[in-house]
Amino acid sequence: EYDDKAEATHRVDSLNLLIYVILLLITILTVWLFKQRRFRFIHETGLAIIYGLIIGAIIAYAIKKPEEKKGNDYFNSTNQSTVNPVSVFNVCSHQVETVTESSKNELQEKASIFFSHFFNFFFIYATFDPEVFFNVILPPIIFNAGYQMKKKHFFRNIGAITVIAFIGTTISTLVIGGLMYGFVLLIKSTKLTMFTDCLLFGAIISATDPVTVLAIFNDLNVDVDLYAIVFGESVLNDAVALTLTKSIESYKSAKSGFDGMAFLNCLAIFMKIFFGSLLFGCFMGGVTALLTKFTKLKNYPTLETSLFVLMSYATFLASECLDLTGIVALLFCGICQAHYTYNNLSATSQNNTRELFSLMNFLMENFVFTYIGVSTFTFQYHSWDAGLTIFAVFSVIVSRMCHIYPLSFLLNLGRVHKITCNMQHVMLFSGLRGALAFTLAIRNTSTVARQTILSITLIVIILTVFLLGGFTTQIIYWLKISIGLNINPDVMTNDYNFLRFYDGSSSGFLLEGRSSAASICDSIQIIPLFKRNFKKLFSFDLVFIKPLLTNHEPPLTETLPKCCFPIAKLLSSKEQLT
Amino acid sequence: EYDDKAEATHRVDSLNLLIYVILLLITILTVWLFKQRRFRFIHETGLAIIYGLIIGAIIAYAIKKPEEKKGNDYFNSTNQSTVNPVSVFNVCSHQVETVTESSKNELQEKASIFFSHFFNFFFIYATFDPEVFFNVILPPIIFNAGYQMKKKHFFRNIGAITVIAFIGTTISTLVIGGLMYGFVLLIKSTKLTMFTDCLLFGAIISATDPVTVLAIFNDLNVDVDLYAIVFGESVLNDAVALTLTKSIESYKSAKSGFDGMAFLNCLAIFMKIFFGSLLFGCFMGGVTALLTKFTKLKNYPTLETSLFVLMSYATFLASECLDLTGIVALLFCGICQAHYTYNNLSATSQNNTRELFSLMNFLMENFVFTYIGVSTFTFQYHSWDAGLTIFAVFSVIVSRMCHIYPLSFLLNLGRVHKITCNMQHVMLFSGLRGALAFTLAIRNTSTVARQTILSITLIVIILTVFLLGGFTTQIIYWLKISIGLNINPDVMTNDYNFLRFYDGSSSGFLLEGRSSAASICDSIQIIPLFKRNFKKLFSFDLVFIKPLLTNHEPPLTETLPKCCFPIAKLLSSKEQLT
Repeated sequence: EYDDKAEATHRVDSLNLLIYVILLLITILTVWLFKQRRFRFIHETGLAIIYGLIIGAIIAYAIKKPEEKKGNDYFNSTNQSTVNPVSVFNVCSHQVETVTESSKNELQEKASIFFSHFFNFFFIYATFDPEVFFNVILPPIIFNAGYQMKKKHFFRNIGAITVIAFIGTTISTLVIGGLMYGFVLLIKSTKLTMFTDCLLFGAIISATDPVTVLAIFNDLNVDVDLYAIVFGESVLNDAVALTLTKSIESYKSAKSGFDGMAFLNCLAIFMKIFFGSLLFGCFMGGVTALLTKFTKLKNYPTLETSLFVLMSYATFLASECLDLTGIVALLFCGICQAHYTYNNLSATSQNNTRELFSLMNFLMENFVFTYIGVSTFTFQYHSWDAGLTIFAVFSVIVSRMCHIYPLSFLLNLGRVHKITCNMQHVMLFSGLRGALAFTLAIRNTSTVARQTILSITLIVIILTVFLLGGFTTQIIYWLKISIGLNINPDVMTNDYNFLRFYDGSSSGFLLEGRSSAASICDSIQIIPLFKRNFKKLFSFDLVFIKPLLTNHEPPLTETLPKCCFPIAKLLSSKEQLT
Repeated sequence: EYDDKAEATHRVDSLNLLIYVILLLITILTVWLFKQRRFRFIHETGLAIIYGLIIGAIIAYAIKKPEEKKGNDYFNSTNQSTVNPVSVFNVCSHQVETVTESSKNELQEKASIFFSHFFNFFFIYATFDPEVFFNVILPPIIFNAGYQMKKKHFFRNIGAITVIAFIGTTISTLVIGGLMYGFVLLIKSTKLTMFTDCLLFGAIISATDPVTVLAIFNDLNVDVDLYAIVFGESVLNDAVALTLTKSIESYKSAKSGFDGMAFLNCLAIFMKIFFGSLLFGCFMGGVTALLTKFTKLKNYPTLETSLFVLMSYATFLASECLDLTGIVALLFCGICQAHYTYNNLSATSQNNTRELFSLMNFLMENFVFTYIGVSTFTFQYHSWDAGLTIFAVFSVIVSRMCHIYPLSFLLNLGRVHKITCNMQHVMLFSGLRGALAFTLAIRNTSTVARQTILSITLIVIILTVFLLGGFTTQIIYWLKISIGLNINPDVMTNDYNFLRFYDGSSSGFLLEGRSSAASICDSIQIIPLFKRNFKKLFSFDLVFIKPLLTNHEPPLTETLPKCCFPIAKLLSSKEQLT
């Protein structure tokens, strides 16, 4: 009996996964077909959603589902976050048994009951544990974003990116939260009632994911600064939105009304989580760099690649254990791995890690979008509300306007290469919502408010992916954004070139004087306040951190003052000294 | 409340995974150290087990575990195959609450209770769902075995490998089952009582996994035939043992006493499952080959690699849905992917797929062995029995003697390159047990008999890995096995060379006559019965299947008779025709 049950569970389980694998395969083949035909209207993520929607609709409507409510009630009474397949099976098989006993020998009826229950079971079970998204699907996507970042342009626009990511996301959260709360009060909604829920929705939906837009930018070789700002914003604001969500949740759980102290407390939590995760991620990246520098793992690429992958995953797990956010830690770990560890790896491992993470990124991303499509129909805890949804879409657009235009204006005061009006329109347009917003929304659906948030989030994601994603090419042509420039070759560029470029002098920076205040050159495009500090940080990195963590030239023995020679020698690898 | 619960579950979950990740990291660093020092006594899998045992012992004994029994009883009453973290947490937190209420303000006591419960919870939860091993951990290992197979030597020794894998594994199962049943009757054991259970144990423990031995063979460049036979046996006998296990389970569930019909039925099930899976695996490999041949996915390596990975995983899932065994299907799918699809892939994808699967193989394998170590102490359903265990070890050795020596004698009658006595000793010695035996044993622990089987299997695995694995180098030197030969370069060798070699003629085989019975050359090392059929099969592959599925030269238009020209042209890619 036990064997049979396990067997049946296992088979439905496999079938469930198989459906997603087949959907992904179809997506891949269609993507290839579209690429062949140079058809850019729908991106792969859009395709994944479409196929997901189709299958979701089939599961939800084409298959007869008797006693569906019963199944749902069963799950509502138990804890929903871990739908237990065996208990589902128990319910189903019990129902089958009771029915079959009363109508023996009626083979046809039996079979029909079996199948309807099977599909009912499948319908209930076709939802993955939300934790899977957070622990398995999202980490490779986020790590890959950090690891494959085009450093040069990112750092050139670090000022604009930071401002838009931090202040912009906060503005967006507040505006959406405020607008939604006003609307909720106006229509006296029963689904969303509390201000903190509206704010939570604001934070969740503020995470942009312009995977479609960037793919098109890449195809068209669009203006480098625009690319860097859109990419940088989307990467960093995931981290900001996630931390905001966590802060609001802990603010909410404090259950005190709005007051100054609670708000400050919330801010302190935000700072602690964000910078704690940032530092922890960088620390783990540094440890990996040191491990790869001082061991000769280089000679065994499999060991080296394994170490790299495991250290990165350990970063995620450890920061989750420490009550930080693994996603933020992983992002900065990825940036550090690319900046330091990458240089210590063997050529094989360099290639393997890059290919491995972009493959995982591709698979995971498309899986999420397929699942978004399927779960729009099959997820059991939807709480639809047309009014709220329409207003949410409106407030999402308004909130993006509220931070892109004013912040761009402020940034332009300090920038040499201005963010043009047309670029601002494209930035406004690139506010797609994706994997992170979905993961945050589906992670907790224990209350009606949370279920409403999930349903609205799903619609916003689907709308933005189709409408914004679909028209990006046209918009870029209409707004006459400069295209055809080459932005690809510098994924892992030599930093000396960057510093020289940054410094405005072609001669070596280090040999002339470490802390010399270089003349402000035309190509520096960050606001003045940041400029000097950032420059100091960068030269500190080049003089101290890079030689410490990598086999980078010149070694510490040359960059540090003479008095530190013994320590410097200890911290340099043989490779550096010879 | 819900949030807190989910949060706590999530954190313990992360901590659990983190411990395994750290163990793997330590293993990797130790492996590197041992490789540097050329220390061959302990292989990485042995190290993984040792670290696992240490941590398992710490969790089990060093940490105080009050009310452990209570936790266990709770799980015994529910269904054990899916230990539900939330219900565990409920139990723990409920206990904490009841205790804390009665002893308020006693902070220290509170904390100690919390920690003991936390570790208790951890102790219970440190076991993964056994299905994880079967669905996530094992597939990459098995697929990799098929994909990285050194085809040339494998096919040269196909006769010996098939005989030892099929007949040998069956003999081994019967001998172990018989001996164990005799012993059970003798000591009147209460833990193992039925003959089918003994037979099941025989089948489970007959799957060899000479990962350590092969690693050493590789290092020493040992005799190619010996390598091929040991590798081929271990790969194929996994499939045979798994199918035998499944057949015995379904035989057992039929619940009739031993009779001829039931035995025949069992045999029929074996044939159906084995050859069904084999054909399905090959079919899916063929579909992948066709997909990669006729689409130009080559230009998009990420899409191509994704397709490859997903098709292979779909093979596993689909065959599980079809009531075949995914592992067997995956093995043959891997072989077909290497033989056909590999040739259609772009250079990037060829490299990426090979590196990806060997990386996954490395990680999964070491994870399994770490888990074997940990679960020896922490698994809750152990049923130890010293007498049975000692006798099991004895019968495992006897059973391997019972098939290696007689079968080698029989094989030598037909072989030109005899299997020498010393080689037979090494083959006897290479009967390590590993991942598959463990997965089969842990998959079902619903009865005392099954729990006993698991406990014995764990001990046999650990003993064989340490004793047999540790002394392999010495044994090879003692028995004067020829070493220093190069066996590596032919991972993906050109088959023409093989056929020429096989054929004994240096001129092209195809051009001279397709079905000509070539003279029996000295290098053919398979028994005569197989020889001609295998040769026919091979030339059929070269004339029809390879040109059909790959961009291999010559195309079908040249190899098929003139009358089939239109069809042949349709089935040839542009690349082949030009």
